[in-house]
Amino acid sequence: MGGCASTSNVLAGQLFNIPVSGTHAHSWVMSFDSEIEAFRAYAEIMPKNCVLLVDTYDITQGIKNAITVGLEMKERGEHLAAIRIDSGDLSWRAIEARKMLDEAGLFDTGIVLSNDLDEYTIKSIKDSGAKVTSWGVGTKLATAYDQPALGGVYKLAAKRKGDGPWEDCVKVSGQAAKLTVPGVLDVRRYYHESGLLAGDMVFDINKGVALEYIVDPADELRQKDLKGKRFVTLLEPLARGGKVVLKEEYRDAMIAQAYCKEQLATLDESQKRILNPHSYPVGLEYGLFHRRRKLVSELLGLSK
Amino acid sequence: MGGCASTSNVLAGQLFNIPVSGTHAHSWVMSFDSEIEAFRAYAEIMPKNCVLLVDTYDITQGIKNAITVGLEMKERGEHLAAIRIDSGDLSWRAIEARKMLDEAGLFDTGIVLSNDLDEYTIKSIKDSGAKVTSWGVGTKLATAYDQPALGGVYKLAAKRKGDGPWEDCVKVSGQAAKLTVPGVLDVRRYYHESGLLAGDMVFDINKGVALEYIVDPADELRQKDLKGKRFVTLLEPLARGGKVVLKEEYRDAMIAQAYCKEQLATLDESQKRILNPHSYPVGLEYGLFHRRRKLVSELLGLSK
Repeated sequence: MGGCASTSNVLAGQLFNIPVSGTHAHSWVMSFDSEIEAFRAYAEIMPKNCVLLVDTYDITQGIKNAITVGLEMKERGEHLAAIRIDSGDLSWRAIEARKMLDEAGLFDTGIVLSNDLDEYTIKSIKDSGAKVTSWGVGTKLATAYDQPALGGVYKLAAKRKGDGPWEDCVKVSGQAAKLTVPGVLDVRRYYHESGLLAGDMVFDINKGVALEYIVDPADELRQKDLKGKRFVTLLEPLARGGKVVLKEEYRDAMIAQAYCKEQLATLDESQKRILNPHSYPVGLEYGLFHRRRKLVSELLGLSK
Repeated sequence: MGGCASTSNVLAGQLFNIPVSGTHAHSWVMSFDSEIEAFRAYAEIMPKNCVLLVDTYDITQGIKNAITVGLEMKERGEHLAAIRIDSGDLSWRAIEARKMLDEAGLFDTGIVLSNDLDEYTIKSIKDSGAKVTSWGVGTKLATAYDQPALGGVYKLAAKRKGDGPWEDCVKVSGQAAKLTVPGVLDVRRYYHESGLLAGDMVFDINKGVALEYIVDPADELRQKDLKGKRFVTLLEPLARGGKVVLKEEYRDAMIAQAYCKEQLATLDESQKRILNPHSYPVGLEYGLFHRRRKLVSELLGLSK
């Protein structure tokens, strides 16, 4: 959702209307008597979107074979779109490949890298000066490799009997961080005049917002004044009474991606750093913070 | 597949014929005015399989409330099946809970533990002397937490034209470990007279087994004589010509589990240790090992 431009999964492409791209398999190259025969066959059936995987056998020889086929395509008025390297020292190989392609005059043939890529490896390869057209990210994206489970916990925030009034629910635990937030909640996202984000406020829709002030639930001393700033309310119901009510266009993968990119552009650069990013302010609405504290104090029998 | 006795996922239970078990949610307890009311309501609708989750608020009080309800059930001729603890120091809590249940005379009420359990935590809790009836393992099982991606690589081992003879394929890479095994392959599993496993042999079904000897592909000096031992051949086709051909009973989850347990029982205990297990011998059939070596030597232009 975050930023992929295409998928190599044809079924995903069909089901969710995502652009499909990719190249042949190593095993496909192995099914020919030689690598160059495989490359020629692929160029013939894919004249408009030919990407050649060059590391089935020896990578340097693979790049040479791809260049031979690229020059043959050029002569026919076609164009070798890219070569793909899927093993070895990717940054060193990409620099070598760029040099070889340029020397052969294939300036507009790109370089695709893949092989267990993640944001850290991509940053390191970029920093090395390698010119890469496209990154194939698979395993570490699909499996959320460094955090394979999203630890969601289902708790109750409010309840009511029939059409009666909503009552706050709160679960008091041994750890302050596990304390739940009571109320029928929604989120307001506030913006600076520059268009950048100022902060998110969790508030109770039945109690409204008395003071446009947020308080960090983990540290009362961290507060932020959001008074008078422009805001939008974030939550949209997905279903009501067992029926999907969210507009179809909001459920389209590429529209969701465009929305995500638009929102990311409203974050400050300092909040998008990989190393030690600036934290984005999210807090409880001032009145909600104090109502929760009172409720917990009563439950624990603490004096005010 | 390995050893779970039931699932808390009702859809999985229905689709794959797996026994379903579990208990209520924390949020369900929160929907009542008090914990004990929630427990009484659950005991009423689940008189035969009542498991009470005791850690929504204070755990010790939760166990006391469960004991109250357990004694009420006993008086009605029913039976509190178990209590479940899902947070805190699980081993200490389980020991405390067992003592409290026994003192109340609820000797046959079991203890279910859950909360990010894996084999290491379970072993440590068992070693602490806690008596636990059942372990709820979720996140770390479903996400394969410590290795979230199974790194399979698709390569070609043999090819043929039409009905012609099979030809070996081999991919020679910079690393010996990435070298593929050529041929149309299957696996023989050999057994000692005691019924325990002796070793697995990868062999080419077209070339047969000349010498019942296996060679470790990573270390030629590690060889093992399997001559004359009883064996079974392992591979079963799942599909042929686009049709599923595997017998339906082999696709049943619980039958597959029983098979898995039966096979695990043929491993030596030393091979099932969590820490530093004895490695199980798997190797290439003697003739296959040497055919591969010759093929690679020729491809790399090495002298024999």
